[in-house]
Amino acid sequence: MSVELRQHIEKITPLTDEEFAYILSHFKTKKLRKHQFLIQEGDHVHNDHWVQKGLLKAYHTDEDGKERILQFAMEDWWITDYQAYFNEGNASIYIDCIEDAELLVLSLENREKLCNEIHGIANFFRRKSNFGFIALQQRILLLLNKNPQERYERLLQLSPQLLKRLPKTLLASYLGVSRETLSRLSQF
Amino acid sequence: MSVELRQHIEKITPLTDEEFAYILSHFKTKKLRKHQFLIQEGDHVHNDHWVQKGLLKAYHTDEDGKERILQFAMEDWWITDYQAYFNEGNASIYIDCIEDAELLVLSLENREKLCNEIHGIANFFRRKSNFGFIALQQRILLLLNKNPQERYERLLQLSPQLLKRLPKTLLASYLGVSRETLSRLSQF
Repeated sequence: MSVELRQHIEKITPLTDEEFAYILSHFKTKKLRKHQFLIQEGDHVHNDHWVQKGLLKAYHTDEDGKERILQFAMEDWWITDYQAYFNEGNASIYIDCIEDAELLVLSLENREKLCNEIHGIANFFRRKSNFGFIALQQRILLLLNKNPQERYERLLQLSPQLLKRLPKTLLASYLGVSRETLSRLSQF
Repeated sequence: MSVELRQHIEKITPLTDEEFAYILSHFKTKKLRKHQFLIQEGDHVHNDHWVQKGLLKAYHTDEDGKERILQFAMEDWWITDYQAYFNEGNASIYIDCIEDAELLVLSLENREKLCNEIHGIANFFRRKSNFGFIALQQRILLLLNKNPQERYERLLQLSPQLLKRLPKTLLASYLGVSRETLSRLSQF
């Protein structure tokens, strides 16, 4: 079970069968349908989530009710409200499903336990966090670039799979352009 | 020497005198004057930098020559081009000094060495990276918020020290507003 999670971890750190079985025993599974919420603003956040199947979005809702998309997550990505998760606080964002989703769920307590017990897994999470940091820097540079055409092409370069799969309305919102501008950029 | 670095690490993980001396022996020092570059686009990036004294900015230059500010760093913060650092590649951003700076410099090789040798320091960098990730999420939410007044107030709440110290032109650029709008927002 969950060969994919093992492959995901082993991209960074090798594991024995026993280690992987032990690690996996600290995860729970969760299934959600399209449009269901994983996290709502104000929820106490206990868990990080690795996407086994599906597509989700994390977003903030402005006072005018508009969704501001923080990140997407598809297979092999992790998603939660990290501010709430690491500080053991309440969510300031929403996360819901764009497609039906199957998740592997890891509590902060179990994560810290695994990191203290297995050097390799501490190393894995340390490196994942570094790469997550880089991805967010890319997102910021994308947002700071004032040229919509360049923003679109950069995203196409960074995440071609994601771009193919996203509903156009969400893609436009992520790029901070109108639906009409997006049609022009991508020549649908 | 560098009581501050020890305090900085010990906010997360306790260290013995011997451990700290050993860790410190893996750092070099670097002094830069105001306006000097720490990193220029295309440089091979070997090092991360902890700010002992001073104020720096990391930015991307658009094709039109405009600076897009990615982050600032003052005392107790870390700064480098993390994409280049973790991937052992070349810089895609510039980092220069807003004020004279004294830095403690850590190569990726020494960082990995220390993380493999001392569990506490691996733990420290893992947690720092988590908090860095959160700070970038905050920056993204700031950029996604279309209301300049709210962006200003949010930054005031998150980093009051930074806000006091930044030249107004850079602050306006960071917030993505004009110098005139900033004056109105902050009632200078």
